[in-house]
Amino acid sequence: MVDVGDKATTAREAVARGTIRMSRDAIAQIRSGRVKKGDPLQAARLAGIMAAKQTSALIPLCHPLPLSSVQVELLPTSTGYTIEATARTTAQTGVEMEALTAVAVAALTVYDMVKAVDKRMVIGDIMLMKKTGGKSGTFER
Amino acid sequence: MVDVGDKATTAREAVARGTIRMSRDAIAQIRSGRVKKGDPLQAARLAGIMAAKQTSALIPLCHPLPLSSVQVELLPTSTGYTIEATARTTAQTGVEMEALTAVAVAALTVYDMVKAVDKRMVIGDIMLMKKTGGKSGTFER
Amino acid sequence: MVDVGDKATTAREAVARGTIRMSRDAIAQIRSGRVKKGDPLQAARLAGIMAAKQTSALIPLCHPLPLSSVQVELLPTSTGYTIEATARTTAQTGVEMEALTAVAVAALTVYDMVKAVDKRMVIGDIMLMKKTGGKSGTFER
Amino acid sequence: MVDVGDKATTAREAVARGTIRMSRDAIAQIRSGRVKKGDPLQAARLAGIMAAKQTSALIPLCHPLPLSSVQVELLPTSTGYTIEATARTTAQTGVEMEALTAVAVAALTVYDMVKAVDKRMVIGDIMLMKKTGGKSGTFER
Amino acid sequence: MVDVGDKATTAREAVARGTIRMSRDAIAQIRSGRVKKGDPLQAARLAGIMAAKQTSALIPLCHPLPLSSVQVELLPTSTGYTIEATARTTAQTGVEMEALTAVAVAALTVYDMVKAVDKRMVIGDIMLMKKTGGKSGTFER
Amino acid sequence: MVDVGDKATTAREAVARGTIRMSRDAIAQIRSGRVKKGDPLQAARLAGIMAAKQTSALIPLCHPLPLSSVQVELLPTSTGYTIEATARTTAQTGVEMEALTAVAVAALTVYDMVKAVDKRMVIGDIMLMKKTGGKSGTFER
Repeated sequence: MVDVGDKATTAREAVARGTIRMSRDAIAQIRSGRVKKGDPLQAARLAGIMAAKQTSALIPLCHPLPLSSVQVELLPTSTGYTIEATARTTAQTGVEMEALTAVAVAALTVYDMVKAVDKRMVIGDIMLMKKTGGKSGTFER
Repeated sequence: MVDVGDKATTAREAVARGTIRMSRDAIAQIRSGRVKKGDPLQAARLAGIMAAKQTSALIPLCHPLPLSSVQVELLPTSTGYTIEATARTTAQTGVEMEALTAVAVAALTVYDMVKAVDKRMVIGDIMLMKKTGGKSGTFER
Repeated sequence: MVDVGDKATTAREAVARGTIRMSRDAIAQIRSGRVKKGDPLQAARLAGIMAAKQTSALIPLCHPLPLSSVQVELLPTSTGYTIEATARTTAQTGVEMEALTAVAVAALTVYDMVKAVDKRMVIGDIMLMKKTGGKSGTFER
Repeated sequence: MVDVGDKATTAREAVARGTIRMSRDAIAQIRSGRVKKGDPLQAARLAGIMAAKQTSALIPLCHPLPLSSVQVELLPTSTGYTIEATARTTAQTGVEMEALTAVAVAALTVYDMVKAVDKRMVIGDIMLMKKTGGKSGTFER
Repeated sequence: MVDVGDKATTAREAVARGTIRMSRDAIAQIRSGRVKKGDPLQAARLAGIMAAKQTSALIPLCHPLPLSSVQVELLPTSTGYTIEATARTTAQTGVEMEALTAVAVAALTVYDMVKAVDKRMVIGDIMLMKKTGGKSGTFER
Repeated sequence: MVDVGDKATTAREAVARGTIRMSRDAIAQIRSGRVKKGDPLQAARLAGIMAAKQTSALIPLCHPLPLSSVQVELLPTSTGYTIEATARTTAQTGVEMEALTAVAVAALTVYDMVKAVDKRMVIGDIMLMKKTGGKSGTFER
């Protein structure tokens, strides 16, 4: 989703990150556009954004809140991809769960689309990188 | 969910695993039942099971299928918890995405319930351990 | 939903019932078609059917199953309405939760549409009336 | 969900209540922790909270609103359990449907988890106990 | 949903329209109340309203927002029905997608309920008629 | 979704089609990859597939069924795009609603992503092209 409204009214932001490690063959298939089910990176990006919007339906005690923006990026690494999600809201609750959920579901989507080639992929290092605007002040890893 | 029908008709099964690493303080709070939001392990178990049932709604190209059973266990380790999920179906499609999704959402639920104590928790090593009953034969890590 | 396929293949059926009790004024408004939000009985019938289809998403350990038919009826009584739901499936799991959920959500929908007139309505006596086709034999209240 | 923000900004609150009546055997199984599917009270509490967040998706003409807090309690009685749900929001709409939905789904969850022992359980007396903060003033039963 | 709060605080509104064209026989069945599955217009109206509330879950990059009102009308024409939906919000994002989604799903619901009589129905001319209150000023077709 | 199982067991198939007409400028932006929100065709394809899986949750009296395959294609025309969706199932119910829903939601997704450039786009001609495998025989437009 693109940003709505101006930044001044965006009270809170969270950035989460994670990785998916895979075989050379799987990396090659993605980068050469040969994955049979379609482009895993595009699908992962959209699935991550859509999942962020469902966070409060997935996580039992997580508050529903109106997200003003979610961004998901997949960056190539030597062993696969780093996934980074940024969530923003003007609401009075933190959005770290939305960012973390976006990362996890984006990673699961890559897994789903590439699993015909590599079942040994590992999703890992899902963590909060940064959180700003909350009552408890700025968190930075 | 408990198992329905007899094993003979259960065509496929998948086992996935993951971890959540946390501070000593966070571990202590969970084990002594002091987490303010409630018992994270119970919540994580239920959230994982419920998420497994939503897998095809979360992962764009994942087939909807009738799960006959999902189990989620959280086992204490020295650095946090290992989460293991087992999914079964009588359908003709694999259930590894259901097992992996259960693990990921169970881990996110623990994070959500414990984040007031520790924002530095890391969810990792989400991977498929075993898959049986498919056309491609048995996969074991 | 109307019935699909022939009865011969419909393995299981469940009937549930419940009531909603309301003021004379509320009853009069419904029966004379004066409820501002629309016809509560039609809305309740549809909401009950739609909720039956979401049962496994609402009830944590309830199995997802393909419903072959759901019917919801609202019958006028001297104190409000009796709601009866019938659910059928060809799957190997019972459908009592689907029938009970249909009744509960149909009742809640009536409440929602009539609450401007009567906040003291009481939803009650939600129970399983009959269950056939299961391994444990026929249950009849 | 725990309360977010301070009370001063919480404009509206609703409290709903209901009961589930069951056999002595069913009560004994729950209280001695022998229910095979797990702890019905924990599951019911979480399911009620999660259902409250889905209220506007279940009840056709119910407004979506950002809940700031939902609490669900199950209190033992001589014939089963009383379920009480409290919902709060800062939005300009009432939250009685959220509280009532939480009660109904919590009760259905208990039914689901205990039905192997007792199919004759009855869910009843679901009603609004209190509503504060609305335009129409405070309602108390 | 009926309007909540006063108009003064309703920042944005969108009106969308569409049509469903069908055979004379299908029109006759609807108008004489002979459709076996129930009243397609009532069902379409409710389905459109409910779908509007799910817009951000259906459209990948669409923002979640709290709708303050959705109305769906089906008007008879010589070739079927014109469907008009009006969505309102106090949020800072436009609601044209909510209005368009309501029209589309209302039309699909008519199709579903009448398809036993006419499989050749055509849903068409789904378009935005009006949009007010946004940063880009008023749009009128 | 890719096809699962072999064709022999796929009992039913439906093909639906629709169009989205837009300005030359909008067409040019899509084809040159300049749409700010991302690639509308990729997003529409995924959104259509995901919506097909939610059909029974959107259309009140539509049966839930396990889709074995959904494909969505967007073909460029001189006035915009033709969208074609193919849905397959091994279940005993028709899948025309799934195919039609996929087309409608794919079109709405294109609208959402391009609306900053052209608010006058028109979604139209949504219709069933073909249906095979049902009790009523093959339908072809």
